[in-house]
Amino acid sequence: MKELALKKLQARGVEIDDIAILVFELQRDYQDITLDDCRATVQSILSKSETICTILTGIAIDVAAENDLLDPEINDLIKNDYGLYGLDEILALSIVNMNGSIALTNFGYLDKTKPRIIGIIDKEGKKGKKCHTFLDDIICAIASSAASRIAHKTEKNKK
Amino acid sequence: MKELALKKLQARGVEIDDIAILVFELQRDYQDITLDDCRATVQSILSKSETICTILTGIAIDVAAENDLLDPEINDLIKNDYGLYGLDEILALSIVNMNGSIALTNFGYLDKTKPRIIGIIDKEGKKGKKCHTFLDDIICAIASSAASRIAHKTEKNKK
Amino acid sequence: MKELALKKLQARGVEIDDIAILVFELQRDYQDITLDDCRATVQSILSKSETICTILTGIAIDVAAENDLLDPEINDLIKNDYGLYGLDEILALSIVNMNGSIALTNFGYLDKTKPRIIGIIDKEGKKGKKCHTFLDDIICAIASSAASRIAHKTEKNKK
Amino acid sequence: MKELALKKLQARGVEIDDIAILVFELQRDYQDITLDDCRATVQSILSKSETICTILTGIAIDVAAENDLLDPEINDLIKNDYGLYGLDEILALSIVNMNGSIALTNFGYLDKTKPRIIGIIDKEGKKGKKCHTFLDDIICAIASSAASRIAHKTEKNKK
Repeated sequence: MKELALKKLQARGVEIDDIAILVFELQRDYQDITLDDCRATVQSILSKSETICTILTGIAIDVAAENDLLDPEINDLIKNDYGLYGLDEILALSIVNMNGSIALTNFGYLDKTKPRIIGIIDKEGKKGKKCHTFLDDIICAIASSAASRIAHKTEKNKK
Repeated sequence: MKELALKKLQARGVEIDDIAILVFELQRDYQDITLDDCRATVQSILSKSETICTILTGIAIDVAAENDLLDPEINDLIKNDYGLYGLDEILALSIVNMNGSIALTNFGYLDKTKPRIIGIIDKEGKKGKKCHTFLDDIICAIASSAASRIAHKTEKNKK
Repeated sequence: MKELALKKLQARGVEIDDIAILVFELQRDYQDITLDDCRATVQSILSKSETICTILTGIAIDVAAENDLLDPEINDLIKNDYGLYGLDEILALSIVNMNGSIALTNFGYLDKTKPRIIGIIDKEGKKGKKCHTFLDDIICAIASSAASRIAHKTEKNKK
Repeated sequence: MKELALKKLQARGVEIDDIAILVFELQRDYQDITLDDCRATVQSILSKSETICTILTGIAIDVAAENDLLDPEINDLIKNDYGLYGLDEILALSIVNMNGSIALTNFGYLDKTKPRIIGIIDKEGKKGKKCHTFLDDIICAIASSAASRIAHKTEKNKK
C-alpha cells in the first residue's frame, strides 16, 4: 500500500523531495541536518498506515470532486476549496496527531504560509481544473510530522 | 444546506428522533430532560456549518464507496470498514471537537457500544450492500455533541 | 524520567498491572492475547516522552490542588472534579492522539464506564482528601493507547 | 469567573487589546474589519467556560512552576519551556478545537511566528524569572479562535 500511496502522490504532482525540502527549511535553524535526513524521515512518516490511508482517502476525494462524481452541493464546496470548509484540515490531523505538538504547530504554519509545493498545488487547485483541496493539507501534515520527528530524534541523541 | 443534510440523513436511514433518543439515554441520569429537549438540541447541532459539511462529506464518501467510484484499494478499505481504517472517526471529530470534553468522552462510548440506530446502521453496512463507514461515526458525533450541550446548558441554568 | 513517572503512578496508587488488565479486557474479544502482552505494551506506551510528561504534569497538578497550592477558584474546580471542567480529558489527549483512532474510541469508553482501577481512583478522588482529577483520565489514555497498539500490531502480523 | 480570568491575564501582562491587534492583523486581508470588531470577538471567546478554565489552569501551572511548587523534575521542564514539552499546546487546544479549522491553522502560525505580545511574553519567560510556558500558547489560542469566529461570521452575513 505504501507504494500505491507514493505513486498517487507523484501522479498528483508531489515528489518525496518536494516534501523533504519543506522539512529541511522548517528544521535547519534548530538542528544540524541534511536534506538526506529529511528525505529519510519523510519516508518513515509515509510508512505508517495512518499516513497511507489519509493519502489514499484524501486524493480519492479530490479526484472524485474533480470528476464531479459527488453530490453537486458538496462537490462544489470541495472543488472550490470553500474557505469555511475545514474537513481537509481535519482529515490531515490523522497524520499530525500521531506526531506530537511540534507537528501541530508546524502544520498550522505551513498551511497558512504555503511555501513551495504547497503553494504550487494550492494555486493549481484554484485554477479550477484540478482539485487539490485535501492534498495540500496532507502535504503540510507529512512535512510538519517529519519536522517533529527530527526534533524528537535529535533531542534523544543528545542525552 | 441544513435541509439537504437532513434529507441525506433520512435517505440513508437516520431520523432526528433516532439521534434524540441516544442523547436522552446518555443524559437522563445527569439531568432532568425530556425527549423534546434532546430533539431541539440535536436540531441546533445540525444547524452548525461544520456539522452540515461533515454529514455531506461523510455520506458522499460512503455513497461513492458503495458505488465503487473510488480507486479500488481505498474503495475496499472503506466499503469493508477495515478495523484499522480510522479516518471515519477523524472526520467525525470536526463535530465533536466543537463541543468540548463531554462530547469527546461520549463519542468514544457510543462508537464502542453502538446502541440503537448506530448498531443498526453498522450492521447494515457490514452486510456488504450499503456502506455506512463514515455515517455511523457521524451519528455518534452528533449525539455526543448534543449530550455535551445539554450538560453545559443545565449547568449554566443552575447558577 | 520513565522511572520517575512509574514511581509517581505507584505513589498515587496505580500499578502497571492495574492498567494491563484494562487493556486485556478491552482487546481479548478481538485478539488472542495474554496479560503479559498487555503488560509489555503498557510498558512501551510508558516509554514515550509524551506519556512521561503527561503523567508528571497531571500528577503535579493533582497534588498541587490536593495541597491547596493553586489559586482558590481554580483549585476548587480541580479538587472537586467539576463536571464541566474538561482540561483533564484534554491533557490526556496528548497520549491518546499519538496512538490513533482505536485509542480515541476506547478512551471515551473507559472514561465513561470507569472499570476497575479507574473507578477506584475516581471514587477515592471524590471523597475529598485525595485529588485524582487528572490521573484517572491519564490511566484511561494509557490503557486505550495500549489497546490500539495491540490491535495495530496484530493486524500487521497477519499480513 | 470571567472577571477573574481577565484579571489574571492582566496581572501576567496581557491586555484584551494585545490580543485584539493580533486578530486584526490575522484577518484584515480577508475581511473588512475594525479593531473594535476584533476586541468584541475576543471578549466573546473569553466568555466561554472552556476559555476561562484554560486561562485559570494554565496560569496556575505557570505560577506554580515560577514559585517552584511542583516536583523538581517537572517543574524544571515547565519553567525552562523545554522544546519537546508539548502539554502547553495541548492544553490550548481546549480553546482552539471549539472554534474550527481556521482557528487550528492560525494557532500554529502564531505559535511559530510569535508576533507582538506572544513574542514579548515568550521572551520574558525565557529570561528565567517569570514562567509563561502555558500563557503564550493560550494567547495564540484566543487570538486564532477569534480570527476564526470573524471569518465564519462574515461568511454568514454574505449569504
